[in-house]
Amino acid sequence: MTASVSTALLTDRYELTMLDAALHDGTASRRCVFDVFARRLPGGRRFGVVAGTGRLLSLLRDFRFGDDELRFLRDERVVDAQTLRFLEGYRFTGSIHGYREGELYFPGSPLLTIEGTFAEAVILETLALSVLNYDSAVAAAAARMSIAAGDRPLAEMGSRRTGEWSAVAAARAAFIAGFGATSNLEAGRRWGIPTMGTAAHSWTLLHDTEADAFAAQLRALGDQTTLLIDTYDIETGVATAIEVAGTRLGGVRIDSGDLPIVAAQVRRQLDALGARGTRITVTSDLDEFAIAALAASPVDAYGVGTALATGSGSPTAGLVYKLVARQDAGGAWIPVAKTSTAKASQGGRKTAFRVVEDGIAREELIVVAEGFEHRETPAPHASARALQVPLVIHGEIDAAAEGRSGVRAAREHHARVRAELPLTALALSRSEPALETRYQSG
Amino acid sequence: MTASVSTALLTDRYELTMLDAALHDGTASRRCVFDVFARRLPGGRRFGVVAGTGRLLSLLRDFRFGDDELRFLRDERVVDAQTLRFLEGYRFTGSIHGYREGELYFPGSPLLTIEGTFAEAVILETLALSVLNYDSAVAAAAARMSIAAGDRPLAEMGSRRTGEWSAVAAARAAFIAGFGATSNLEAGRRWGIPTMGTAAHSWTLLHDTEADAFAAQLRALGDQTTLLIDTYDIETGVATAIEVAGTRLGGVRIDSGDLPIVAAQVRRQLDALGARGTRITVTSDLDEFAIAALAASPVDAYGVGTALATGSGSPTAGLVYKLVARQDAGGAWIPVAKTSTAKASQGGRKTAFRVVEDGIAREELIVVAEGFEHRETPAPHASARALQVPLVIHGEIDAAAEGRSGVRAAREHHARVRAELPLTALALSRSEPALETRYQSG
Repeated sequence: MTASVSTALLTDRYELTMLDAALHDGTASRRCVFDVFARRLPGGRRFGVVAGTGRLLSLLRDFRFGDDELRFLRDERVVDAQTLRFLEGYRFTGSIHGYREGELYFPGSPLLTIEGTFAEAVILETLALSVLNYDSAVAAAAARMSIAAGDRPLAEMGSRRTGEWSAVAAARAAFIAGFGATSNLEAGRRWGIPTMGTAAHSWTLLHDTEADAFAAQLRALGDQTTLLIDTYDIETGVATAIEVAGTRLGGVRIDSGDLPIVAAQVRRQLDALGARGTRITVTSDLDEFAIAALAASPVDAYGVGTALATGSGSPTAGLVYKLVARQDAGGAWIPVAKTSTAKASQGGRKTAFRVVEDGIAREELIVVAEGFEHRETPAPHASARALQVPLVIHGEIDAAAEGRSGVRAAREHHARVRAELPLTALALSRSEPALETRYQSG
Repeated sequence: MTASVSTALLTDRYELTMLDAALHDGTASRRCVFDVFARRLPGGRRFGVVAGTGRLLSLLRDFRFGDDELRFLRDERVVDAQTLRFLEGYRFTGSIHGYREGELYFPGSPLLTIEGTFAEAVILETLALSVLNYDSAVAAAAARMSIAAGDRPLAEMGSRRTGEWSAVAAARAAFIAGFGATSNLEAGRRWGIPTMGTAAHSWTLLHDTEADAFAAQLRALGDQTTLLIDTYDIETGVATAIEVAGTRLGGVRIDSGDLPIVAAQVRRQLDALGARGTRITVTSDLDEFAIAALAASPVDAYGVGTALATGSGSPTAGLVYKLVARQDAGGAWIPVAKTSTAKASQGGRKTAFRVVEDGIAREELIVVAEGFEHRETPAPHASARALQVPLVIHGEIDAAAEGRSGVRAAREHHARVRAELPLTALALSRSEPALETRYQSG
């Protein structure tokens, strides 16, 4: 669909520097386990939402060092000739297990576990974190908005507020976490997400009168379209809309003003004009709190831009990529962890479960294994659901987790697991994570 | 260098819907002027920094509707057959004038002025805003950090905290606004930005001892490398570093702890060990305020990640793309502006000047023209510097503003114009814009 672009240089230089040094001292071939996890949830969130996994798998396919990438690394003396030869043939041949896309997570949850040689696994750090940190930040914000909106539909309209390719990722993450549509056409093409949108203020300003603009839009798009009624005076806009469209008009959109008051006025005016079926969409600087504050207002749909695409105050999920276990020179496995202040992490290979009792999630249970080869860790009890699935096995990428089918599966999975959350998890205020993470050695 | 990917669907659906309706009613061919500007500066910033212009020009070259894009639009019934034919041949044939990349801006400053038919100009809205909103948000944060850091070098290390392609843009924007290097290799390849980086905690954890890790790094990279000394205990880490490297060690990096205290301790320890020339780099969750708070500490260089790539609390610049003038059916020019509450804008074509007296910027002066064809508006007085330059003339893109040379020119321009700011503009606290924007009819 689009030309494949190498993703190999979407990488911090120190990864290649370490690779270079490791090829020199022989540690490059030590088998390693890296975890991707969050030390804490940003913004006092009650839960995190995994997003980006399917995108990461696609980008991993394109993580190849071609002539141009190698030339740059040689010319800039980033690595030496031995390392260039290693990179020339680079394919990730290790394995990745992780949480399903759309799954919830909590502090310490191993969203991804990457196993391979140090050489092949260390250089994926930046790509994995860039994708998951942005997409999961958007998904967490989207999930909160979706909770606040209840049954009312949400459309993602934030493309203009974030980098042009992040915009596509944002639309995808929002869809996974409960949004119904996006304004972003590339997200429609690439991921099969429903797209929407009718007209901007420039449409009205282009015409000699608001009535001309509405009439032209109705001729082109039919009377089920949505007219933007706040370019000049809202009351006049509503009157003109119904005069031109008739009472069967599909919808009006309000993009400014004090929304609870304005929405109520517009509803009253529409009803008085006989347009009882005309829907009201609001789109002005919404976030989860503004959406919640409109719960009692006569609003039929929300369009969310800035707050969605920038993670509503927490633009990055704070995920890290840490070495948690490795072989020593003799091949024995050693759990490892940084011990410096405030950034300590939990070493060892982990198997994660969500304990669900009577349909309600109670705990994130992480079993830290003694052995380190990946194997099935039996659920510690009947109510514990295993959270990790194979994503890459010996270099073979799970194609079902990529592409459009992966997005749809992630959206369904998210809806299913969000329904298990205790009620306290649905509150919007800043607080502790809704589930506690408990470690158990196994 | 990389395959060219169509950017045409990095677009909100409503732009194509409006195009479709405009081709129906004949308004598509009305000539229009759109401005990109900020209504206010986010986060109480004193000034904004234009970044992304050169990237936008490159992306504009790839704004082409190929078979795959057209098929999607047809299959999804986004537009009709007439519009598909228009898009098939689409090339932007209008003109774009704008602020130089790296220039400062203030509320109302016309960062870009796009002139063309409604049809060709309306569909560039999302792409232009995505690029400029993200890049300018990062550049504004970077400029503040650069002011706080004074003469000490700054490195951009935020790739993992933002979308994978936004990361490349962030490195570029930070370089323009005063950073000296980036960890992002793609930014090095694509934009010629110096790259840096040595080792992560995983490097130390990979080895059986910290001393083994340091020794291997020194063998591979020489003794001018920077050793990360906080994986376990910092005091031991410093002692081990000097023991292994000798007193000529290039640098140490501290990535955790209470930095003013830790940096002072590490400096004392290095000096006591005789390593008086060993530099200290700090990299733990820095932003402009943390950097300012380290001004009196013995720190030699800063690495900034999260706060840089997420705009330090203001992840988007809040720029909008608004129709400000258009022709009517008879070809006469009409200034237009939305008048709804709080989002009102200033209609008419604008020529922007910075009034600089005795080398100090005093005012942003915007002359709103009566005529609308682009022409040279003479500077209203000798101390007013014209801010707009031609970027695209009748579809011809200014190649000098693109690519590596554009980045370097933007960085130099930024340093030059930042030096003109009054001292009050350099404070980090939330306040009003440093210069007032004054409109004058001309």
